[in-house]
Amino acid sequence: MALPCRNNLKFLFSFLPKSNYWKRSFCAAMSPKNQTPPGSGRVFSGIQPTGVPHLGNYLGALENWVSLQNQYSSVLYSIVDLHSITQPKDPALLRNNILDMAASLLACGVDPERAILFQQSQVSEHSELSWILGCLTSMPRLRHLPQWKVKSKQKNEGSVGLYTYPVLQAADILLYKSTHVPVGEDQVQHLDLAQDLARIFNYHYGDVFPEARALLSSTRKVKSLRDPSAKMSKSDTQAMATISITDSPDDIALKIRRAVTDFTSEVTFDPETRPGVSNLVTIHAAMATITVQEAVSRAKGLDTGAYKTLVSEAVIQRLTPIREEFQRLRADRAHLQNLLELGNRRARELAAPVMAEVRHRVGFS
Amino acid sequence: MALPCRNNLKFLFSFLPKSNYWKRSFCAAMSPKNQTPPGSGRVFSGIQPTGVPHLGNYLGALENWVSLQNQYSSVLYSIVDLHSITQPKDPALLRNNILDMAASLLACGVDPERAILFQQSQVSEHSELSWILGCLTSMPRLRHLPQWKVKSKQKNEGSVGLYTYPVLQAADILLYKSTHVPVGEDQVQHLDLAQDLARIFNYHYGDVFPEARALLSSTRKVKSLRDPSAKMSKSDTQAMATISITDSPDDIALKIRRAVTDFTSEVTFDPETRPGVSNLVTIHAAMATITVQEAVSRAKGLDTGAYKTLVSEAVIQRLTPIREEFQRLRADRAHLQNLLELGNRRARELAAPVMAEVRHRVGFS
Repeated sequence: MALPCRNNLKFLFSFLPKSNYWKRSFCAAMSPKNQTPPGSGRVFSGIQPTGVPHLGNYLGALENWVSLQNQYSSVLYSIVDLHSITQPKDPALLRNNILDMAASLLACGVDPERAILFQQSQVSEHSELSWILGCLTSMPRLRHLPQWKVKSKQKNEGSVGLYTYPVLQAADILLYKSTHVPVGEDQVQHLDLAQDLARIFNYHYGDVFPEARALLSSTRKVKSLRDPSAKMSKSDTQAMATISITDSPDDIALKIRRAVTDFTSEVTFDPETRPGVSNLVTIHAAMATITVQEAVSRAKGLDTGAYKTLVSEAVIQRLTPIREEFQRLRADRAHLQNLLELGNRRARELAAPVMAEVRHRVGFS
Repeated sequence: MALPCRNNLKFLFSFLPKSNYWKRSFCAAMSPKNQTPPGSGRVFSGIQPTGVPHLGNYLGALENWVSLQNQYSSVLYSIVDLHSITQPKDPALLRNNILDMAASLLACGVDPERAILFQQSQVSEHSELSWILGCLTSMPRLRHLPQWKVKSKQKNEGSVGLYTYPVLQAADILLYKSTHVPVGEDQVQHLDLAQDLARIFNYHYGDVFPEARALLSSTRKVKSLRDPSAKMSKSDTQAMATISITDSPDDIALKIRRAVTDFTSEVTFDPETRPGVSNLVTIHAAMATITVQEAVSRAKGLDTGAYKTLVSEAVIQRLTPIREEFQRLRADRAHLQNLLELGNRRARELAAPVMAEVRHRVGFS
């Protein structure tokens, strides 16, 4: 279950299929020589602290995060706040967003007993390793990454941080000697860079880093409720376009009632010709944990208006415990900070010996 | 005393005059409004671990370091090993060079009671702050720095580390809220960047960093003994061109005996028309701590051959205790490492609260 990721919610390492690169990587992972027994690796993934996630994030990535923590013996999920300041942010808002994101992840089911949930900026080894890897990265390599090409045009060329963040991403992954990284289509070339940097480091300084592999899941893309040709996105200016995972039942019902469909009242699943109603079917199936076929069959005899009520109920049923848990966690700031601090400590415990090894290999000690 | 620095010995922050920038900065430092009482500030300087320094380094910078530790209440000298890997180095050689540099600095008179002598890579806050400052630095700003223009051409554009090292330099300075930085002509624009980044950070996040000012000393440039039109340089391929501060008396005498002069036997000081003999006068004056005029008057009646013996004696007399102290320090690796570790701890103690303040201001905590 779970997958493709929202570039706009700024998942740094998200989930995705279709790309030659990915196919290559996945095929390699599946070849007998390279096969790692399931569960024996270490998963790393990161998410920027953009506040409370929306339904697209939940179904596209977070649900999969919860599932991965039960499949792998070692799992790290990082709130990558160092990545979030490549453009300066309001500090009070950032502070708030970090706690909102931590509470959201826990409420969605990230289990601090199974996964290390931590805040990137509190583990100084990320920046340290990033400097060392930057010394092994050529300038053109970063310039040719597609995200830089796009973002630097939007932002009048952008900051040094924006240019070098794929190197910090590589450090995020390599610091824990991660073996598996859920990766979004938009981040595929960045994982490629992390793999290259592992090879280059190992070549210069001896074997230290494994080459992390892309993790595949099936794709499930949630669209905007106001414009089903676009992804559901945090940055959407229309409040009705996006369902936050902490929306009240009334808000959820209202947003789905207002969701754009078409002039055919029957419910069918055909994303190409009927994107609006198909988006509702996708959401319904995902939230009720049934297949798309089953969702369509449950809609039999209902017009889209009546079907929307069914979808709302499924969404509300699924999100209510998440919202309640979020509110419970968010009400006790000290407890939440303690949970994060515990994760930070555990991440530091893993990072410190790797960084000590790196410093020694490089010749600093 | 002391001053201009060897780009090739890779002093990151060295000593230098003549440049409009410097004049501007120095004048500003001297204006009543900006005047800091002498001694009340904090000096930061760094040197790359290139092994044992030569006479040019000693007279150009290290002698001044020793003098500054008696003039300022807080002084930090860093062996900037993170800067030394913008091109990968042999780890065993780097390890050795770090200890050679530490022993050299101590032997030259850096006093661990008065100055904090430490290894940059052992204080992770340098890389951390560098990341944050990089997010406030525009790409063109670095591209237009002259050193990048030169070095990137030599090295097929160079690494990301080579491109971003002025940002790490700014972090080195700002991390300790340094107020004074001995700066070489080749690094003037880099201090300018550090000052700008202090302003930009303070603008975004509130007043945290002072704007460090350039520190002036008089200029004294030591030239190659084989080609007095060039600076004395570590990277000189001719062994006879450079006097290491740990050279034996025999080696020193031989190198000075072979020093290029001209066909006039009388000793005069005229760097333009008689660079070879003038270089010997400069060295003589500096090592005997006399004026150039006094050195020339002592040479009265001597031909250049006989004068070379006089110069040798002055150099040997000055360097012998340094060489002996170097050998003593270098023979006890554990003691040397302990001295460095003590400095690392003291640097961390200063860096930690500043970085905690930075993290809070940015919104990470």
